[in-house]
Amino acid sequence: MARINHHFLKLASGYLFPEIARRVRAFEQDNPTLAPRVIRCGIGDVTEPLPDAAIKALHAGVDDLAKRETFKGYGPPTGYAFVREAIAQGDFATRGVTIDPDEIFLSDGSKPDANGFLSMLGEGNVIAVSDPVYPVYVDTNVMAGNTGEAGHGLNSVRYDDLVYLETGPSNGFVAAPPHHRVDVAYLCFPNNPTGAVATRAQLEAWVRYAHDNDTLLLFDAAYEAFIQDPSIPHSIYEIDGAKDVAVEFRSFSKVGGFTGVRAGYTVVPTTVTGLTPEGLRQPFHPLWHRRWATCSNGVSWPVQRAVAALYSDEGRAQTGELVRFYIENARLLRAAVKSIGLNVFGGENAPYVWAQCPQGLSSWDAFDLLLREAQVVITPGAGFGRCGEGYFRISAFNSRANVVEVGHRLSALTAMRSV
Amino acid sequence: MARINHHFLKLASGYLFPEIARRVRAFEQDNPTLAPRVIRCGIGDVTEPLPDAAIKALHAGVDDLAKRETFKGYGPPTGYAFVREAIAQGDFATRGVTIDPDEIFLSDGSKPDANGFLSMLGEGNVIAVSDPVYPVYVDTNVMAGNTGEAGHGLNSVRYDDLVYLETGPSNGFVAAPPHHRVDVAYLCFPNNPTGAVATRAQLEAWVRYAHDNDTLLLFDAAYEAFIQDPSIPHSIYEIDGAKDVAVEFRSFSKVGGFTGVRAGYTVVPTTVTGLTPEGLRQPFHPLWHRRWATCSNGVSWPVQRAVAALYSDEGRAQTGELVRFYIENARLLRAAVKSIGLNVFGGENAPYVWAQCPQGLSSWDAFDLLLREAQVVITPGAGFGRCGEGYFRISAFNSRANVVEVGHRLSALTAMRSV
Repeated sequence: MARINHHFLKLASGYLFPEIARRVRAFEQDNPTLAPRVIRCGIGDVTEPLPDAAIKALHAGVDDLAKRETFKGYGPPTGYAFVREAIAQGDFATRGVTIDPDEIFLSDGSKPDANGFLSMLGEGNVIAVSDPVYPVYVDTNVMAGNTGEAGHGLNSVRYDDLVYLETGPSNGFVAAPPHHRVDVAYLCFPNNPTGAVATRAQLEAWVRYAHDNDTLLLFDAAYEAFIQDPSIPHSIYEIDGAKDVAVEFRSFSKVGGFTGVRAGYTVVPTTVTGLTPEGLRQPFHPLWHRRWATCSNGVSWPVQRAVAALYSDEGRAQTGELVRFYIENARLLRAAVKSIGLNVFGGENAPYVWAQCPQGLSSWDAFDLLLREAQVVITPGAGFGRCGEGYFRISAFNSRANVVEVGHRLSALTAMRSV
Repeated sequence: MARINHHFLKLASGYLFPEIARRVRAFEQDNPTLAPRVIRCGIGDVTEPLPDAAIKALHAGVDDLAKRETFKGYGPPTGYAFVREAIAQGDFATRGVTIDPDEIFLSDGSKPDANGFLSMLGEGNVIAVSDPVYPVYVDTNVMAGNTGEAGHGLNSVRYDDLVYLETGPSNGFVAAPPHHRVDVAYLCFPNNPTGAVATRAQLEAWVRYAHDNDTLLLFDAAYEAFIQDPSIPHSIYEIDGAKDVAVEFRSFSKVGGFTGVRAGYTVVPTTVTGLTPEGLRQPFHPLWHRRWATCSNGVSWPVQRAVAALYSDEGRAQTGELVRFYIENARLLRAAVKSIGLNVFGGENAPYVWAQCPQGLSSWDAFDLLLREAQVVITPGAGFGRCGEGYFRISAFNSRANVVEVGHRLSALTAMRSV
C-alpha cells in the first residue's frame, strides 16, 4: 500500500478558521433568533466590491476569451510579461527598488506560494516563526516534515524542532533576530495577526542577521498597502542586501479585494541561494521557475488583466480609496476597544486590531463571550500561538455600518469590562 | 544556509514544451520569411473561443464582484457546493457512478493537482508510469524525491527506481499491470500522448491488480470528453471496486477550452487509503481536505460559475460541439498522416494523433524536418519517454483552416516519405 506522508498526522487540530466557522454555526443553530445579528470580524476577508478598474479588466479579459482572434490559452507559467512588468514598476521601481520582472512569479495566491516554496527546501532545515504567527507558516512546515511532534502546553500547540520567536507588548510584537542561527525565518509585516509593523532599523537587523548566518528570509508583505507611516518599508527589498537573502510574498487579496478573485505573487531574486548536499550554493530562482513550468499553467487570463489594471492610474486611485476605507474601520475599532478600557495594538498600519483580553479571560473565552453576548465574531489570539493567548484579533474588513455597530456593541459590553 | 531540495537537481533537462518553444523561436529568428507560415500542432492547447455558456457565466460572476450584495470573498477551499454538485451529477451520476460532492476537490488545474497529491505520499513508494508518458508525472515524482538519479540511454532519460511500463503497437499503447507489485501507478486514458484508450476489460484488470497488491491508482481522465466509442469507460469509477483504490484527475482545459481560464478537479473517495508508519490504513480524504484548507483559498469565483455553466443544458450542447470540432480535426490529421504512408495511432477517441516516423528518422529529426520543410510544429515522441522514440504527436487543437493546411503540407512532404 502507498505510504502516506505521516507528517500530516502531526497536525494537532483543525485549521483555525474552520474551527471558528464551526463554533459560529453551532451558535447560530442553538440561537436562531440571534443568528441574524452575528457580525463576522474573524477571518480577514474583504467585504467591499472590487475596484471598478478591476471589474472592467475582468470583463475585457472574458471578452478576449469569447473571440478566436483574442482568445488566450496556456500562458507563460509565471504570468504574462505585461503583468510582471506592471508589478516591477508599480510595487518596486516606484520605491527605488530594482526587481526584474523575471524575478516575479504570478500565482493564484499567497497561501499556495508559501506552501509551494517549501518544496524548494530540503530536509533538516531549522525554521523560525514569530509567535503569535499566521498558522499557515506553521502548518505547511508540519506537513513538509520540517518539525517534530506537537507538544501541548499553555492552551496552545507548539511543534518540536520549530523555533518560536516570542513577541508581546515588550518588543511591540516585532521579533528581534535570535542569538543562535536558523536556516529559514518567516517575517510578516504588517503583521497578521497583531497588526504590528517593523521599522527600517528592525528590518536592517534581520537582513544583517541573514547575511551573517546565511539565513533565508521568507518575507510576507500581504498587507503592505495598509502602511500609513511613510518611514515604514513596504518591501524587504527596500533594505540594502535583502536581495541576497530574502524571498517576498505578495497578495492582491486585500489591496484589490481579490480574496475571491485569487491572485498574488512571489519575488525570488536570482541572487538568493540555498545549499546543495555537496555544500555548493544553488540559486532558488531556476528551481522555482522549473517548478512553475512543471506544476502549473499559471493564472486565469481575465484575472491577469485585472491585476495589471490595479496598477493603472485609475486602479491605484481606487485601491487607495479601498485601503483608506478599511483603515478608517480599523481606527473606529481601535477606539471602541479602547473605550472599554482594553489595551490595543495594531490597526494603524494594518487592517487588524489586536486587543488584550481583560485579566483572567482566555482568548477562546473572549471569543465565546463576544459571540454569546454581542454576536461579534473575532479571532482568538491563542489560535495564532502561545503568545497570542490573552489577546484577540478584530478584522477591519467589514462594512462601515457593521464596524459602527460592532463599536456600539463593544462599548455596551459590560461583561468584557467586569471580568 | 537553507538546504535545498536536491531532488530538483536530478531533473535531466528542461520541461518538454519550453524546449519545443525554444527551437521554434530559433527557427523563426533564423527564417523570418517562413516564420508567418509556422503552424503549431505541438502543445495541446485549444484554439477555439469559450462556449457561450461559460462566457455568460464568467461575466455574471464578474458582475457579482462589482456589487456589495453579491460580492464573494474567500469561498470554501475545495469549491462551492453548487459546483461540486453539478460535477457529481454531470460527470458521474449520469454514468451510474455515485461520487459524493465532498469527494470532489475543485482546483485551478490538473497539473497542480497531480503535483499536489504527491505531498500526500511518504517516502519509499515504488511508482509506475507508462512509457511514453505525460512528462509531468515523471518530473513531479523526481522533484518529490520518489526516484533515483537520471540515467541516459536510447535518446531518452530514465530515472532510477521509477517503474516504466512499456507500451507500443503490440499492446496498443495500453500498459497491462506489471507482474510485480508497485505502490502507485499512473494511468491516463484517453492517453496523452498516444491517444490510446483502455477498454473496460483493461481497466478491470488494473483495478483487480490494485486490489490484489494494495496499489494506489492515479487515474488521469483529462481527455474523457473525446471518447466516441460508447463501450469505453470515461471514469475509472465505472469499474467496480475502483472507489477503494483510485484517485481521479479531471480538467476543464480541453472539454471547455479552459486552458487560459484554469479549472480542474480531483476525486478522492473517502475509501481510498494509504499506509501509516505504524502499518495502519489511513484514508487520504481528510489529509487532502486539510491540505486544501491550509494551502489554498480555492478557485476564482467567476471561474467557478463558468465551471457550473458547462453542466447546464446549454453548456453541454456547446462543449459537445467543441469536442466534435476537434475530433473532426483529429480525423483529418489521421487521414493526412496515413496518406503519406505512415502508421498512425490515436485520434479516434482523443485529440491527439500519434504517428510513427519513417524508418531511420528519430522523433527530434522528424520535429526538425517538419519545422524546416513544412513549418509544422509537432511534439517529438522521445519527449515522452524512450518508447516514444520513433513517433510524433500531432495535436488536433487548432482551427479547421490550419488543420486542412497541415494536411496539405504533410501530403506534399516527400521528405517524410523518402527518408
